[in-house]
Amino acid sequence: MIDPHFPFSQEVLPTIASLSEDALLARIRQQLGDRTPPAPQGMGDDCASLSLSPNPGVLLLTTDSLTWGIHFDASASPQAAGAKLLKRNLSDIAAMAGTPAHALLNLQSGPDLRIDWLESFIEGLAASAREWEVSIVGGDLSSLPHGIFTASLTLVGFSEKPVTRSTASIGDSLYVTGHLGGSLHGHHLSFTPRVAEASWLAANAPLTALMDLSDGLGTDLPRMLQLFQRARLDPATIPLSPTTQEMTLPERLQSALFDGEDYELLFTAPAADQSWLNPFQAQFPCLPVTCIGFIDTATEEESGRLFWQDGGLCEGEGFRHFKA
Amino acid sequence: MIDPHFPFSQEVLPTIASLSEDALLARIRQQLGDRTPPAPQGMGDDCASLSLSPNPGVLLLTTDSLTWGIHFDASASPQAAGAKLLKRNLSDIAAMAGTPAHALLNLQSGPDLRIDWLESFIEGLAASAREWEVSIVGGDLSSLPHGIFTASLTLVGFSEKPVTRSTASIGDSLYVTGHLGGSLHGHHLSFTPRVAEASWLAANAPLTALMDLSDGLGTDLPRMLQLFQRARLDPATIPLSPTTQEMTLPERLQSALFDGEDYELLFTAPAADQSWLNPFQAQFPCLPVTCIGFIDTATEEESGRLFWQDGGLCEGEGFRHFKA
Repeated sequence: MIDPHFPFSQEVLPTIASLSEDALLARIRQQLGDRTPPAPQGMGDDCASLSLSPNPGVLLLTTDSLTWGIHFDASASPQAAGAKLLKRNLSDIAAMAGTPAHALLNLQSGPDLRIDWLESFIEGLAASAREWEVSIVGGDLSSLPHGIFTASLTLVGFSEKPVTRSTASIGDSLYVTGHLGGSLHGHHLSFTPRVAEASWLAANAPLTALMDLSDGLGTDLPRMLQLFQRARLDPATIPLSPTTQEMTLPERLQSALFDGEDYELLFTAPAADQSWLNPFQAQFPCLPVTCIGFIDTATEEESGRLFWQDGGLCEGEGFRHFKA
Repeated sequence: MIDPHFPFSQEVLPTIASLSEDALLARIRQQLGDRTPPAPQGMGDDCASLSLSPNPGVLLLTTDSLTWGIHFDASASPQAAGAKLLKRNLSDIAAMAGTPAHALLNLQSGPDLRIDWLESFIEGLAASAREWEVSIVGGDLSSLPHGIFTASLTLVGFSEKPVTRSTASIGDSLYVTGHLGGSLHGHHLSFTPRVAEASWLAANAPLTALMDLSDGLGTDLPRMLQLFQRARLDPATIPLSPTTQEMTLPERLQSALFDGEDYELLFTAPAADQSWLNPFQAQFPCLPVTCIGFIDTATEEESGRLFWQDGGLCEGEGFRHFKA
């Protein structure tokens, strides 16, 4: 007999391993019903965006976790892991063109966690918080079984003029910052969240939509598209990471589309107006911005999918959280 | 050789099991240095309290987690577990006399989590969110090893006039709501967070300090005391839970002091003014409020400790998160 109170399946009942992250999230949102307002006030964008009326601007809220064995392993120093926890969240605040401010830290660990390791982890987090002018204002500690460590951070930010992710128009050009792919060659730890760049763009460029690339262009770009919209990409323009140059071209494209953890900006702007591009490059000379395609009309079936310029479908598989 | 990047100890290095939660937290706060402002702007109270200037009032932020095998087991329905996750956080907002508003949900689980169990968990969370008028505005999903499930919730609230926990004066009377102890007899799931009661008290009573009882009076009350302050308690007045009436009196007191998960309010007010007590009982006729002692002067060594009225020290051991 199945105990309705026991959360794990003994091969009889379907488990979350059978669902993609998006499918699982869609179920949860459906179940929450009127308890979750539509994005950007509720779930669905990089941050929740809450009015501070009568103050101008909005409050931005985002949360992300970092788990031993999944988001980092012993190839990462504990300092780099602590910094990564904050930087993942900073990238989400950047994705709304916000300014980060306050964080809450949740640590959950087995009792066998080394004190010296944890101190190095906090040292990395504190150094990154100092660099990005974030204060840690609270949190929670609790225990898990031996050998397990996970940390979650909730970041609060502010924005005068947040830019959402599903607001592009047909014909808008698609841009990315930096290079894509090869994140496992150290970039998933060493990346710089594009906070300053996103603020500059929101203030000085005619942005129509903005998000960050955390799961890879191939997985994240469909989340930007609305019904009757598809993306048309020019493979020759996708800025491939120099760290993948020893791979074949198809391998490099695959890495750029599906490895994830690029933490670059993906955004749209009207194709006719490129007046912001030179001033941007003058302000941020070390960060290339590349036009990789545009938003095209789509049938219902084509909606939310990526196509190459020659008409072929661009497909592959990104990171799955709950693979069995 | 010890790998500096490997977080868990193989019996050589000290682990967090050797530290109390308060000691571990103190180390983390020390390491965060200027990255964590003093409470209530930073860590140390029930919520972080952030100015919304030029708006009146403050933003309250708190986070708490709920882990299978630690905070609940198969004696709890998944619906009750989902509701408990929200109610734990509501109790922290109540502890600052705030009004809850928005929540972020972090789910972390092994791939073997049953979909039907998770749906029941979310159902309980959504029902509780509806009851308490909280919206779920975002979150994160990520994976852990088989058989592990933990959920964290970050709750945002607002307060016109937050009441902090370490602001009592010598001579103030100590009050608790409800009954203490016996939380394992169902109360740890069925409790009602004292949101309305705390708001009423902040508006109508001369509160000097306020917190909620989550780890038990014996563990939480010392956190309310400042240097040169101790608590003097009258054991005969401590409101013992009727669910413990089959225990001996010493066992019932031990349960009231150290079981934890009472989720009642602990607060102080000047001893001379009890004019608020009858109006409170008229407003909340089903919730007793009991004076259990007062804040007394202390030597440095006595500071932060609890004494019985007859002068004896009140000692015991509460819940330890990271016991090996």
